[in-house]
Amino acid sequence: MTNWVVILAGGSGTRLWPLSRRRLPKQFLPLLPGDETLLAATARRCSSIVPGERVLVVTAASQVEEVRRALPWLPSENVVAEPLARNTAPCIGLAALAVRARDPDGVMAVLPSDQAVRDERAFIAAVQQALVTAAAGEVVTLGIHPTRPETGFGYIHCGPPSEQQPWARRVLRFVEKPDHATALGYLASGEYLWNAGMFFFSAARILDEIGRHMPDLGRILDTIAADPAQVDSLYPTAPRISIDYGVMEKLPGAMYVVPADIGWSDVGSWAALPEVRPPDSDGNTVVGEAIAIDARGNVLVGDGRIVVAAVGVSDLVIIATADAVLVLPKERAQDVKKIVEALEAARRDPYL
Amino acid sequence: MTNWVVILAGGSGTRLWPLSRRRLPKQFLPLLPGDETLLAATARRCSSIVPGERVLVVTAASQVEEVRRALPWLPSENVVAEPLARNTAPCIGLAALAVRARDPDGVMAVLPSDQAVRDERAFIAAVQQALVTAAAGEVVTLGIHPTRPETGFGYIHCGPPSEQQPWARRVLRFVEKPDHATALGYLASGEYLWNAGMFFFSAARILDEIGRHMPDLGRILDTIAADPAQVDSLYPTAPRISIDYGVMEKLPGAMYVVPADIGWSDVGSWAALPEVRPPDSDGNTVVGEAIAIDARGNVLVGDGRIVVAAVGVSDLVIIATADAVLVLPKERAQDVKKIVEALEAARRDPYL
Repeated sequence: MTNWVVILAGGSGTRLWPLSRRRLPKQFLPLLPGDETLLAATARRCSSIVPGERVLVVTAASQVEEVRRALPWLPSENVVAEPLARNTAPCIGLAALAVRARDPDGVMAVLPSDQAVRDERAFIAAVQQALVTAAAGEVVTLGIHPTRPETGFGYIHCGPPSEQQPWARRVLRFVEKPDHATALGYLASGEYLWNAGMFFFSAARILDEIGRHMPDLGRILDTIAADPAQVDSLYPTAPRISIDYGVMEKLPGAMYVVPADIGWSDVGSWAALPEVRPPDSDGNTVVGEAIAIDARGNVLVGDGRIVVAAVGVSDLVIIATADAVLVLPKERAQDVKKIVEALEAARRDPYL
Repeated sequence: MTNWVVILAGGSGTRLWPLSRRRLPKQFLPLLPGDETLLAATARRCSSIVPGERVLVVTAASQVEEVRRALPWLPSENVVAEPLARNTAPCIGLAALAVRARDPDGVMAVLPSDQAVRDERAFIAAVQQALVTAAAGEVVTLGIHPTRPETGFGYIHCGPPSEQQPWARRVLRFVEKPDHATALGYLASGEYLWNAGMFFFSAARILDEIGRHMPDLGRILDTIAADPAQVDSLYPTAPRISIDYGVMEKLPGAMYVVPADIGWSDVGSWAALPEVRPPDSDGNTVVGEAIAIDARGNVLVGDGRIVVAAVGVSDLVIIATADAVLVLPKERAQDVKKIVEALEAARRDPYL
């Protein structure tokens, strides 16, 4: 019985447009200090938990090369290609097949590739605790101590600790994104944690649970396991369902959460960049080259060799790429989606 | 005796950085409605005054091709190359040699290439009046009725009208850029006009005046006239002096100004763009492609195929090029020069 890390790198996303594009999602962007990508940082953290040959990355077939470039140390065969992006349940099922084929008793840590963690030591400790509980046969998730009444995340309602493994608490319930008042209540109660999409289980256990709760997907995975050549034709027929919805929400009372305080961020908008990349002495958070005069508290991002020059502006987001430039106040950073919607409506695909 | 138009297209400038560069000054930018350049619009206006074969454009040797591209209808030999940029006195001297060689009695209208004129009919009428006065042997300038207490321009103090040509008034004095209080006084007096750098004289007369007031330059021009092959070696030794300083300011009481109300703008900063290019219904002035959501009163310029996306910002200047992006409030548009100075200090020549 060995531990494996499965990094999910299939996501796309538009919240960091125009730097993120359909073909270059958030995990590939050089946002962290030293211009490290979220994917590279995630993989680096995991290499303290398992050796590199037991790190798998699942990604879209179209992004396999991008992943290999980002992680040159990763054995080439450890990049698992999804023929077509389905949601996380099929993706994790595919990864579980890959782990089980190499190690029938393998235990998996499933981690998103597009999150940042400031406290790596706390992260590694929490993951190791979760893996111990998973090795005991349980389904486990990591829950992030909330630091604000965030309405953009799902929450996990914690129950009492496990007797054998006091670091793990029983999951009472997964709850959807709350409204602001509810989120304030969650924060005050101390009983709710953010669901960060990190899961731990043995490959055999999660395939069992998929077979039980998502029998269609279970049959597809069984067929692929028996004849891997069928993956290209069968995988695209899998339902587009998240592991949260397809499995986890069916297991309340029967799974565990390890609470974690790890300096976590999902870098969910440009306004969050200062959480993961330290601002300079003027409070400007800079990626690339910038010249700021009488300018404070801005997020200034220039792709490639673009210089971003700002004079006399505060708390703005300015993102410059070779074919698109975005300017908005930090407090409206979520409105990037309005721009993306306008471009979609106008069928301006080259910019998406 | 025929009329000639000489367009001065040698200027460089940084006030419209990053769209304007050392190699692509303001007159070549597609700023006017229909993306016409200031140079093309100037030349087009002049073609109502003289036929195209009597329009000369003086420009830096390095920009001859750019001028020919911008004015495909202009006879190729009508582009006069300055071997090296000197100021306007040598440049106008060189143009006067070119005119005199073709027409010893030629009368010249000398016009900057980087100004905009909204009322073309009034412009043409004023130029024709000025040419009549110049043909009578006078040195003439156009003076713009001031519309604000501008401290960035020189002014012309007007005297009484000419008896023979009542449209022309005697020039009492050229005055340097005033302070704000002085400019307010000028505006209130009604006796001061903006010096827009437009001059009218016969080629013979201006060469005489150069010989009298700038004898060094006069000798250089005489030598070039006798042996045009020497222009490349001699012209760079000419003094860098403006025609205003070198000649015009020596002629008070002996020259005339034609007051003109022509919707004139020197497009001296990005904040002036709405003067020459009509804003859209949200008050945004757009060059290229822009998406503006809850955004009003901005100047949004995207070079080439760059889309500029702005959300929730007002009265900003946002200029996007493939390698540099500028963001500042309209009211600080003059501070572009601080950015340019910072780039110069950092020796970031590719951006200049």
